[in-house]
Amino acid sequence: MTATGTATARAFPNIALVKYWGKRDESLMLPAAGSLSLTLDAFATTTAVTLDARAAADRFELNGEEQGGDRLNRVARFLDLVRERAGSAARAIVRSRNEAPTGAGLASSASGFAALATAASAAYGLPSDPASLSRLARRGSGSAARSIVPGVAVWHAGDGDETSFAEPVEAPDMRMAIVTVDERQKAVSSREAMRLTALTSPFYGAWVSSTERSLEAMLEACRDGDFTRIGRITESHALRLHAVIQSADPPVRYLSPTSIAVFDAVVRLRDRGVEAYATADAGPNVCVIARPADADGVAAALREFGRVRVVGPGSGAELIPDGGAAA
Amino acid sequence: MTATGTATARAFPNIALVKYWGKRDESLMLPAAGSLSLTLDAFATTTAVTLDARAAADRFELNGEEQGGDRLNRVARFLDLVRERAGSAARAIVRSRNEAPTGAGLASSASGFAALATAASAAYGLPSDPASLSRLARRGSGSAARSIVPGVAVWHAGDGDETSFAEPVEAPDMRMAIVTVDERQKAVSSREAMRLTALTSPFYGAWVSSTERSLEAMLEACRDGDFTRIGRITESHALRLHAVIQSADPPVRYLSPTSIAVFDAVVRLRDRGVEAYATADAGPNVCVIARPADADGVAAALREFGRVRVVGPGSGAELIPDGGAAA
Repeated sequence: MTATGTATARAFPNIALVKYWGKRDESLMLPAAGSLSLTLDAFATTTAVTLDARAAADRFELNGEEQGGDRLNRVARFLDLVRERAGSAARAIVRSRNEAPTGAGLASSASGFAALATAASAAYGLPSDPASLSRLARRGSGSAARSIVPGVAVWHAGDGDETSFAEPVEAPDMRMAIVTVDERQKAVSSREAMRLTALTSPFYGAWVSSTERSLEAMLEACRDGDFTRIGRITESHALRLHAVIQSADPPVRYLSPTSIAVFDAVVRLRDRGVEAYATADAGPNVCVIARPADADGVAAALREFGRVRVVGPGSGAELIPDGGAAA
Repeated sequence: MTATGTATARAFPNIALVKYWGKRDESLMLPAAGSLSLTLDAFATTTAVTLDARAAADRFELNGEEQGGDRLNRVARFLDLVRERAGSAARAIVRSRNEAPTGAGLASSASGFAALATAASAAYGLPSDPASLSRLARRGSGSAARSIVPGVAVWHAGDGDETSFAEPVEAPDMRMAIVTVDERQKAVSSREAMRLTALTSPFYGAWVSSTERSLEAMLEACRDGDFTRIGRITESHALRLHAVIQSADPPVRYLSPTSIAVFDAVVRLRDRGVEAYATADAGPNVCVIARPADADGVAAALREFGRVRVVGPGSGAELIPDGGAAA
C-alpha cells in the first residue's frame, strides 16, 4: 500500500472461451455479460512505471519507442484514475515491452493494461490484491480484468464497479493452438464493432442473455472437469459471437476464408476422434483448444493454414524485479 | 375448374432476397415471417400430371426415372391434398423434368411443387388463379408459393392458410449471377436445419421479427425502385440468415471458405464502384444481384470461384401444351 515510486509488472494476454462483447456502462467498463478466458503462458507484456514528481505530463514508451496521440492518451487517462485514487499528482513514465510479434493476432490491450494496473498500483501505493487489480485493469481495457488472473478466469459482470472483476476457476488442463491466418490490421476495431453490434444487431439482446447461460454452463463444465463440454460450449459460443457481429448494420465480418477453413479442419479432426474446438476473437485468427496430449497433433494438422503456436495456461499479472522492461 | 385428366406445367426456381427460415405451422406450412424473392428465367421444372382412375397408387417419374421412397411419398401426400379438395379418388402419374444441372445448388423443390400444383390443379379441376395456386404450392414446399409468381414476389406470412400466398411486386430490373462453388450435397438439409434453428438458436425470435422489418424495408425499396437499398438489405439479411443458422446448437455452417471469398470479392467490387450484393441460401453457393448493365462484369469477376450463370427475372408457373415433359 506504500508508494515505491517505481515498479515493474508482467502480464499475459488471455483468450476468451466465453466472450466479452458489449458494455452496459462505457465509462465504468462494465460488461453486458460475464465471460471466461484462458490466460496464456506466452506473449507477455512487461511494464515499468516510474513516478516523476517534476514532470508536467505522463510519457509512454512502447517497445523502446516514445508514443503520442491516442496511445499516450489512453495510458494517461488510466493513470489519472490511479492518481485520483492514490491522492497523488505525480506524473509517470511508463515503459512497456510486448513479446507478442506484431500481427500475431493477439490484442496486447489485455496484457498491457493488466501489467500497467499492477505496476502503477505498486508505484502509486494502491491496493495490490487481485480483485482490486482486476477492477482497476478493467477500466483500461475490459478484457485486461481477466489477465490479472492465472489460467482459467471468470470475469463477473457484477452489479457495479465493486463486483465486476475476474477470479480463478478450477478447470482441466488444456492447451491452445493459435493459428495466425492473417497478419493485417483488421478493418473495424473491436471497440467500434462492439458499439455497432449493440446499436444495430437485432440479435444483441439475445446474445447478452445467451452469453450468461453459456457462462453458467461453462462454469459447470469446468467444475466437472469435462473438457468435451468445455470445447463444445467454446466453439458454439464463438460462432454465436461472429453471428451477432455479422448481423450488425452494416454487417461486420471478421472470419476470412482461411478462418472458415480452420473451423472446417477442426471439425474433421473431431471426426477422426481428436477433440479440438475452435474459437476466434474479433479478427481472422483462430485459437484451437485441445487436451495437452493432443496439442502437438492438432498444431501439426493446422500448419497448412498459417503459423501455429501452442500455448498453455499462464501466470496472472505479477510484480517483477525492476529494470527488465526499461531496457 | 373442370378436370381435364391431364395437364402439363412449367415453373422456375426462385432465390429469396428476404429469406424464409422457420415455420409457425408445420402442417399448414405457414412461415414464421414473410419473404421476398426473384423467380428466375432458367432451370425450369416441367411436370405432367395424368389421372389414372384404375391405378391403385400414384407414380412419380423424375428425369425419366421412376421414383420411390420419400420422393414419391412427398408427391403422393401432396396429391392427397389435391384429391381431397377436388373430391376425386383418382391416382395420377406425375412425370417431371428438371433443367437445373445436378449440383447447381438450386433446390428444385420450389419449381417442382409450383409446377406440380399448377398441373395437378388443372388435371383435377381445382381453381387456377395465382393466389389459389400459390397457397396450394406452399403446402408442398414453402418457397414453391413464390415460384407461382413471375419476377419479384412477396410471400405474405398471412394469418392463416387463406392469406399466406405470394404475389408480384414491382421492382427495378436486375440480374443474378449464380456462383456454384461446391456441387456436393449439403450435410444438413434445410428442413432439418430450419427446425434445429427454431428449437435451439437464442437468436430465433429476433430473427423472425427482424425479418418482418427487413421485408417492410425491402418492399419500400422495391416501390422506390432503389436498387442500392434492395442490394444492401439483401446482403445484410443473408448474413443474418447464416448468423441465426450458425447460432443453433449444435451450430450449422453452410458457407464454405470459397463462399466467404465470394462475399469478400463482392465487397471489393463495390469498393471499385460496381454495385453487386451477395446472398446465399442454405448451402455454399452464392447468388449476386446486380443491375442488368453490370451483370456480365460481375460474372467475369466471380468466375475464379466456380461456375457462374447469369439469370434474370422469369415467368410464373404456367400451363403448357401437353407432352413436353412426358418424353
